[in-house]
Amino acid sequence: MKEFKVAFLGFGNVGTGTYKIIKENGSKIFQREGINITVKKILVRNVNKKRPVEVEPDLLTDNIKEIIEDPEIAVVAEFIGGEEPAREYILSALNNKKTVVTANKEVMARHWEELENAAIRNGCGLYYEASVAGGIPIIKVVRESLQGNNITEIMGIINGTTNYILTKMSEEERKFEDVLAEAQKLGYAEPDPTSDVEGYDAMYKLSILSTLAFHTRVRISDVYREGITNITPEDIAFGKELGYTLKLLAIAKKHGNKIEARVHPTFISADHPLATVRDAYNAIFIKGDAVGNLMLYGRGAGDLPTGSAVVSDIVNACLHQSKHMYSTLCNGDWKADEVLFDNNWETEFFIRMTVIDKPGVLAKIAGIFGKYGVSISSVIQKGRNSIHVPIIFVTHKAKEMSIKKAINEIKNEDVVIKIGNVIRVEH
Amino acid sequence: MKEFKVAFLGFGNVGTGTYKIIKENGSKIFQREGINITVKKILVRNVNKKRPVEVEPDLLTDNIKEIIEDPEIAVVAEFIGGEEPAREYILSALNNKKTVVTANKEVMARHWEELENAAIRNGCGLYYEASVAGGIPIIKVVRESLQGNNITEIMGIINGTTNYILTKMSEEERKFEDVLAEAQKLGYAEPDPTSDVEGYDAMYKLSILSTLAFHTRVRISDVYREGITNITPEDIAFGKELGYTLKLLAIAKKHGNKIEARVHPTFISADHPLATVRDAYNAIFIKGDAVGNLMLYGRGAGDLPTGSAVVSDIVNACLHQSKHMYSTLCNGDWKADEVLFDNNWETEFFIRMTVIDKPGVLAKIAGIFGKYGVSISSVIQKGRNSIHVPIIFVTHKAKEMSIKKAINEIKNEDVVIKIGNVIRVEH
Repeated sequence: MKEFKVAFLGFGNVGTGTYKIIKENGSKIFQREGINITVKKILVRNVNKKRPVEVEPDLLTDNIKEIIEDPEIAVVAEFIGGEEPAREYILSALNNKKTVVTANKEVMARHWEELENAAIRNGCGLYYEASVAGGIPIIKVVRESLQGNNITEIMGIINGTTNYILTKMSEEERKFEDVLAEAQKLGYAEPDPTSDVEGYDAMYKLSILSTLAFHTRVRISDVYREGITNITPEDIAFGKELGYTLKLLAIAKKHGNKIEARVHPTFISADHPLATVRDAYNAIFIKGDAVGNLMLYGRGAGDLPTGSAVVSDIVNACLHQSKHMYSTLCNGDWKADEVLFDNNWETEFFIRMTVIDKPGVLAKIAGIFGKYGVSISSVIQKGRNSIHVPIIFVTHKAKEMSIKKAINEIKNEDVVIKIGNVIRVEH
Repeated sequence: MKEFKVAFLGFGNVGTGTYKIIKENGSKIFQREGINITVKKILVRNVNKKRPVEVEPDLLTDNIKEIIEDPEIAVVAEFIGGEEPAREYILSALNNKKTVVTANKEVMARHWEELENAAIRNGCGLYYEASVAGGIPIIKVVRESLQGNNITEIMGIINGTTNYILTKMSEEERKFEDVLAEAQKLGYAEPDPTSDVEGYDAMYKLSILSTLAFHTRVRISDVYREGITNITPEDIAFGKELGYTLKLLAIAKKHGNKIEARVHPTFISADHPLATVRDAYNAIFIKGDAVGNLMLYGRGAGDLPTGSAVVSDIVNACLHQSKHMYSTLCNGDWKADEVLFDNNWETEFFIRMTVIDKPGVLAKIAGIFGKYGVSISSVIQKGRNSIHVPIIFVTHKAKEMSIKKAINEIKNEDVVIKIGNVIRVEH
């Protein structure tokens, strides 16, 4: 039985969950794996604060040095979140030859090279399963189960808060603001919801996932990002009529040496496996040239699910102590200058606008789309009894830039009162 | 760059798929992982047979000794299938210090201890990702991503042929025999379909999965097995009315030291994630006390998807050559004599029977159910215009044995013409 001492940096939701799992399942788990893991120190801001779990007082410290400089501590699990001081602490842990397990998507997405190089230099491990999709072991699957594949596509619901909001908006026909307020009250959304509802959270996660899947560094600046704050119940209702479900999808595709990576509200067919993913659940759909379609579904957040991923990383870190695995960034498919990040991708589009209801309007707008090579697959026109009526166009596959140009011209037409949402459609 | 020579035993569907992946993606894949893998020998019955892929003639051999006794060969991938000679060949490969990768569910389910002990004794690896659910990396997820969990439940669609048949029966309202014949013509079902349609294939896979998930040896003799050959379009149609979808599920549950493992046609709610798994797709739903609900979905068979799992095993085998992982059978949760395999599990039941349509029949039957402690949650009676009418009972949770006893008594009633299918209902 090998002994391992672990330290936690931070003791919020996920830290507490991880602690509970080690406390409750530890002896059984570690007996199965032949190792014994104990938590030796927990870094907190205030050692005197009342906490939801009982912890021996001398486990707590507010001094990072007590962890970094303790030669007994083999693994440091980081739960602080955000960029600083998380980056700095992870780096000093690695430089002190401690393996780091992190749940921090932002620090990984932003500082991957610096952190991984430090790990390699020091011969210790860097594990980050919990940084993407909580309890779903997507990092390990992409990294260690799909080596035989060229992955060509990722589509994921990787933000639980927005999926919860969109599910409620869709099933209860409610407005974004209403559902957000409720989600905040229930603790499903943060007091400042920006990171979730504007897609930053999903952007960090997609950067990590697509970097691993494509063996190419996909930076957050390479990810197009659009949130769900402008989505209305009307968009969702019109989409339903067309057989679509609205999701905030994180999408990455690879064609030759071109990569596109984008987070935006997306309509998918109601019979797509991702369409049935409800509430705060996450799911990631992957296409590989050998495996075909693969999907993982589960809890993308929460103390115990995310703790499950952290504990798995800790166990694997201890078992592989002599031989940690690193990402294959360094021997990627292309040199950085050969990669083309494409922002003129091709999808179908759902375009809602309000127009004056008079003969010839449809022909005029369709004509402008045609001028930019955009062909229309269906049109819904509603409510013939008022002067201003909503009209929805769904296009065949079209280039992002062509749509932008067409809409720029359409919005200057007298008969067009307002351009509403433009929502991409994926299959 | 480390060099590894691999030999194949057998060169059917999955062997060919694996060969194609190594041939087409190999250089890229192995560059990413820093290893070079080449196929040195392929054991076939007839070296002169025409094959769907082109292979250099001197790769082929009909002499197992050319593989087993070749010190250059580090990894042997077994694609023969079935019990013998697969078991014997795997064993001699292990005894000659070769790591074995196998896609063979039957040999693993039947001879796990013998094979794994040989691997441990010889310091080489035994990998079997491809033995369950084709391209879905369920073995590795259960083994290496959920260590923090006590897994309490597995529900899986792990036989593609029966899922294809049931999907067609359900969506096209066709008979079992019709769809089976079509599936055979299309190559989705074997000329002798017994192993699939009678649930043997799923039984082997459930034995492997539940053994890993519960850290307890679950033998095939511990798995209850019932196929889909008696399912009628009427069962499926009545189930639909009740909001159920019919699937051949492989189910394993753990309560304290009791384990139940069973393969049988099962009704699940149409909104359960497994209900939307169509055609030949597989999916496995897992409950863990930390991770909550987790589901993996993908292609459960086919040359390239299953080849994807084999290639992943080969890569991992080469990367971990010094430190293979073994199952935790030997340090399981309980000693064998503490485990209780429970065959008196509790589920809801759908029971279809044909009765004489006269007053008092319902009361009589309900009375017998009541006598055995079975309470009824709903009843559907159809077609009041004929003498013999179908009647469907859905029970609340009841014990398997109570249902058996109740039905034994009910079937002797004069008013009961015929007991139709008894189908378990899961949520």
